[in-house]
Amino acid sequence: MRYSLVLAAGAQLSLAAISPRNFIFVVPDGMSPYSPTIARFYNAYMDGGDWEEEAPSMRPLATDDLHVGTIDTYAANRAVTDSAAAGTAFAAGYRTNNGYLSVTPEGQAVGTVLEAAKMKGFKTGLVVTSEINHATPAAFSSHTMARGLADAITDQMIGRTHPLNQSVDLMYGGGSCYFRPNSSENSCREDDTDIFEWVAENGYNVSVDRAGFEQSKMAQLPILGVYADNHMAYDIDRQQQPEDEREPSLTEMTEAALDHLSRATACNVSCSTPGFFLMVESSRIDHAGHGHDDAASLHDVLEYVRTVEYVKNWIDEHPDTAMIAVADHETGGLTIPSGFDPRPLVNVTHSAEYLSASMLENADGDNATFISEQVLPQYGLSNHTDEELDDLVATLPLLDENSYAFSNALGDLLANRTGAAWSTGGHTAGDVILLAYAAGEMGNQMKLDLAGAHANTDLPKYIAQSLDVDVDEVTRQLQALGTDWIPRDEEEDE
Amino acid sequence: MRYSLVLAAGAQLSLAAISPRNFIFVVPDGMSPYSPTIARFYNAYMDGGDWEEEAPSMRPLATDDLHVGTIDTYAANRAVTDSAAAGTAFAAGYRTNNGYLSVTPEGQAVGTVLEAAKMKGFKTGLVVTSEINHATPAAFSSHTMARGLADAITDQMIGRTHPLNQSVDLMYGGGSCYFRPNSSENSCREDDTDIFEWVAENGYNVSVDRAGFEQSKMAQLPILGVYADNHMAYDIDRQQQPEDEREPSLTEMTEAALDHLSRATACNVSCSTPGFFLMVESSRIDHAGHGHDDAASLHDVLEYVRTVEYVKNWIDEHPDTAMIAVADHETGGLTIPSGFDPRPLVNVTHSAEYLSASMLENADGDNATFISEQVLPQYGLSNHTDEELDDLVATLPLLDENSYAFSNALGDLLANRTGAAWSTGGHTAGDVILLAYAAGEMGNQMKLDLAGAHANTDLPKYIAQSLDVDVDEVTRQLQALGTDWIPRDEEEDE
Repeated sequence: MRYSLVLAAGAQLSLAAISPRNFIFVVPDGMSPYSPTIARFYNAYMDGGDWEEEAPSMRPLATDDLHVGTIDTYAANRAVTDSAAAGTAFAAGYRTNNGYLSVTPEGQAVGTVLEAAKMKGFKTGLVVTSEINHATPAAFSSHTMARGLADAITDQMIGRTHPLNQSVDLMYGGGSCYFRPNSSENSCREDDTDIFEWVAENGYNVSVDRAGFEQSKMAQLPILGVYADNHMAYDIDRQQQPEDEREPSLTEMTEAALDHLSRATACNVSCSTPGFFLMVESSRIDHAGHGHDDAASLHDVLEYVRTVEYVKNWIDEHPDTAMIAVADHETGGLTIPSGFDPRPLVNVTHSAEYLSASMLENADGDNATFISEQVLPQYGLSNHTDEELDDLVATLPLLDENSYAFSNALGDLLANRTGAAWSTGGHTAGDVILLAYAAGEMGNQMKLDLAGAHANTDLPKYIAQSLDVDVDEVTRQLQALGTDWIPRDEEEDE
Repeated sequence: MRYSLVLAAGAQLSLAAISPRNFIFVVPDGMSPYSPTIARFYNAYMDGGDWEEEAPSMRPLATDDLHVGTIDTYAANRAVTDSAAAGTAFAAGYRTNNGYLSVTPEGQAVGTVLEAAKMKGFKTGLVVTSEINHATPAAFSSHTMARGLADAITDQMIGRTHPLNQSVDLMYGGGSCYFRPNSSENSCREDDTDIFEWVAENGYNVSVDRAGFEQSKMAQLPILGVYADNHMAYDIDRQQQPEDEREPSLTEMTEAALDHLSRATACNVSCSTPGFFLMVESSRIDHAGHGHDDAASLHDVLEYVRTVEYVKNWIDEHPDTAMIAVADHETGGLTIPSGFDPRPLVNVTHSAEYLSASMLENADGDNATFISEQVLPQYGLSNHTDEELDDLVATLPLLDENSYAFSNALGDLLANRTGAAWSTGGHTAGDVILLAYAAGEMGNQMKLDLAGAHANTDLPKYIAQSLDVDVDEVTRQLQALGTDWIPRDEEEDE
């Protein structure tokens, strides 16, 4: 099934009637419209009172004030988008095929709002909790026919192979393995290029751990911080890390990024110089949805809410800034039927993914005992039945073919207890909630501009117009180079 | 689990900064946030092109322009509300227990925005496709401790037993059986009172069929039109009724109601006299959700969209009017995973509920043949397997205990083909989308007032404030009468 590249859902977006210096675009990847409700229930229970008898006082989330409309999520070739096509919609304003990164379904490169901002002299940043070259940040800063081309994407993002050279001034996230030559430990590159060496030679301040992150706060742009070999930890796992090795949280990275970008674009009384564009992604709500991990999802949602709250407060101090926050799609088909109960979430101390890895590392061959004595208690499931334990053990032979077999089964066990219903291991096709914020009159104007159900592709057009940057000019320059430079998956093409 | 009666979700609703003469409150009962997406997919396919190969052009729904925020849906004693508690939230602004109609959890009556409007001299109307005494309309115009007390609710709604007498000037819907004495055919009253006689003696223009509906358009208020013994037909079934016997559609009833209410409150140049309050409910999207009937749901959603479009256009001609449209909760736990396909919906000509009733009336004992030759083709399932037929036949012995056993199984067969996922036969606890419209500047002000995630209980406060009517005064008058007059379910109390 294919769609035309015209407006799909909804209201024709008003021309942006705002002119901020800075724009912050926050993406809770894969977050369900039901997630705020679960977070409110959990908070209400944690605030005191028994779920069954007492009357917990429900309090709003910091994001609740900011709902202004909805967006659709369809890809060009599928009713259900992936994060590459959704990222392209957000970055470039084009509806493309699943798997494509800021190229049209026909394979033409299209410029992104980040690239357009950079071209106009803005500072730019990407802050994520996934690998830094994952689909959403990749869509803002690279152009490939396949989201899986991790090396090629990395090399474009840092400017090594991008036709416009370096366009991202600050990157915080995970995925350090893509920066190491394949001859070294903890590399996931296919080639033997030492990208850490390249970025150092090209002026980046590079950091890979908590100490480096703290030092990076005093460094000059460009900055690259990659704090995990692959994805960064789920927030629930991150909170258990030793303090001196703890990965920075999404909020901490966002705070550091805003400090950097605002300092680098500081102006005096009259600020006619360009400001910044920052994309912040709470990347792993999506992964928790794929795994039906209510606990990992909840804590990443709560951290996303804290990040939005931080940004909102920051904007109040820097009122020349606008924010949009919106999921790229929903993951997991989450709904909350009768019988939902947040209490099983309280005693969970680790994600199912973490516990699965922990088992493989530490079980010493006796997986059943390790599951029973270590995994289930840490997942809040001390009250498991023998049958449940047997079912979990039965997933172990499947791990060779599906490394998520065990963690997914664990997630479903917890979901059986909370009563949260997940309909799919993939994404869904529904609309998602659009949030917006700016201070004072600009905030009111955003509500007027953004009320309605919009095409997801309208958002970068709105941002580009409000910042007065020219995405079409980037597209012209990229398309003038033809398409030979655009990496494609040779195997997939066969 | 209980909640305090304070604001639950979200943003503190701004004080209403609008002053319309008229307010129209539209409720798509049980509609999912995913329903607009299904309607857009269906329209795109019907607009032309093959779902797999061609590129259907997606067009917006008339409702898409109107999204402004969200509301929560929790009841006072349950995370998942029923339509009684949700109707009380919408009508009276109180969070109460499931099953209660405009009484607090403690059993105190609370006034409704409709009653407050009537007390101030406004004209009032209720237009629904359910039985007229169903939970949502009942919450606006009656006070009972149990939504199942159908006779008592009916008698309050018409003013026969309501302490404030008659408060509803116009009622269109279904449920004529509640107006007939139990000694007559097609009665569902428990007592032998002839309510049709009572309303005729008390000045109501009464109609019960298509001809009567047409005549009612020329009548004077008060008006009572009940066009089905029980609920009115699903729109998909209504469209197949013979034209001269066809029940009026939701849009037709809304058009007639707006004509009546605006004529009865007509004013000349300066309009300081009160206008009207009208509640319109697309009642049966909820029932289709309970039954997982994708086809019945779709066509009731499309008719709801037509009604909102009609109201929006009407408001453009009558710009002293404001509209809010919002579901009371979601029903069925609907999501749209990968593989969703609208094509199985195209050949469905009747709801599963209609086909179940048709089988019981016409099968002449040979249900299997009737199902295979009549039911399945009319439900678009000509390609059924023998096993599916056997499974359907196997539900027939269950009909004595669960009259929905067959229709629910039929609904699930269709859902298996569309790929729509339903997680529950009941309601869910998520937020739902809030729509608002007024013309010109008032419309902009509504966007500013209503952006955010609100408590469902805030909506009648907003409406009452904008119309400048005093719900608290109604509450004072009702509570001054004590509680003995409030009907309760004696069996339930035991």
